[in-house]
Amino acid sequence: MSSRPRLLITAGPTREHVDPVRFLSNASTGAQGAALAEEALARGCIVDFVHGPLAVPVPAGVIAHAVVSAQDMLDAALRLHPACDAVIGAAAVSDFRPRETTAGKRKRGSGAWTLELVPTADILRALGERKGHRVHAGFALETDDLAANALRKLHEKQLDWLVANSPQAIGAAESRYLLLGRDGTQRDLGVLTKRALAAVLLDVLLGPVRP
Amino acid sequence: MSSRPRLLITAGPTREHVDPVRFLSNASTGAQGAALAEEALARGCIVDFVHGPLAVPVPAGVIAHAVVSAQDMLDAALRLHPACDAVIGAAAVSDFRPRETTAGKRKRGSGAWTLELVPTADILRALGERKGHRVHAGFALETDDLAANALRKLHEKQLDWLVANSPQAIGAAESRYLLLGRDGTQRDLGVLTKRALAAVLLDVLLGPVRP
Repeated sequence: MSSRPRLLITAGPTREHVDPVRFLSNASTGAQGAALAEEALARGCIVDFVHGPLAVPVPAGVIAHAVVSAQDMLDAALRLHPACDAVIGAAAVSDFRPRETTAGKRKRGSGAWTLELVPTADILRALGERKGHRVHAGFALETDDLAANALRKLHEKQLDWLVANSPQAIGAAESRYLLLGRDGTQRDLGVLTKRALAAVLLDVLLGPVRP
Repeated sequence: MSSRPRLLITAGPTREHVDPVRFLSNASTGAQGAALAEEALARGCIVDFVHGPLAVPVPAGVIAHAVVSAQDMLDAALRLHPACDAVIGAAAVSDFRPRETTAGKRKRGSGAWTLELVPTADILRALGERKGHRVHAGFALETDDLAANALRKLHEKQLDWLVANSPQAIGAAESRYLLLGRDGTQRDLGVLTKRALAAVLLDVLLGPVRP
């Protein structure tokens, strides 16, 4: 890794439009991604910050790349990946999108409505297939079987590190985290603020050195 | 109307949860509702501000009532309506919600997914049925046949005033508006900021007097 590592960080939710007005999304604020970017900048990294619509400011100093949908985020990530040394997928990417996006806004009066959803592209998995020498880390939000589901994701996406937490983390000031490593590491990190978690994750990604 | 009118203003989007993490929503920021509340406060009104998750701050001085879903917003509006002199429905309420909300988070690996959507309760229509002496105003966001659809909504919801605009207004600093009145008024308001539109609407609702 070069003396000034270049990080690709994804942050925030994506929006999958049903029509020009409505979309499927989630309550991610982008605060975890922003905390990671701030910690990385403080350590002298160059940060490519690919973000959906955020409820927090884009951190000053990042190279910002605003996107809306999971497909937009994938396109941006694939474009930026070759130049980066490490990836942290902190975005809460929509797993599903409507099969079709309609041009007009559907009216309430038209009654019940069946919406066909299909899986979106898996961004970290796609980047994992192009991993090369890079270090990759991701997050897993699990409602049940936290450790087992997280470990499966770590291998499927060819991640080196994965932070697992539960939906209570969304929008919360602090949360309980589990850190899993490809090397077999399983560390209960306890309750941490998002910035403290960012410091732990950057320590394992880049080594515990600070400029 | 009393010397210090009490306004019920709804603002922002609602979120209709599919599961603990995902929801259907729209890109409303709540900026129009906030501008209306600020203008009403500046004119000496008491403001009950019923709002979904906002991308702007809740205006200082309102009586704030935070909600998530269309049903939550309806419940709050019905509770507050009897004490108010006027209503402005500026929220971008979800017209549809999932028929069922599942307890766990569905996995991407489970393939395509059919989501059953049903219409939500129509808040302004429900308030219209209890209108009494009150003045009611609403907004209509239309992708086609703007004036015709807006006029139909005005009558269906027993509104006195309705502001019609197109989806470009969402998140925009200014937009082009059409004002319709139960008395037959049709005024093209031209391009206005949200605060200027708030002033026009409060003029017609409360009369052009300022304290």
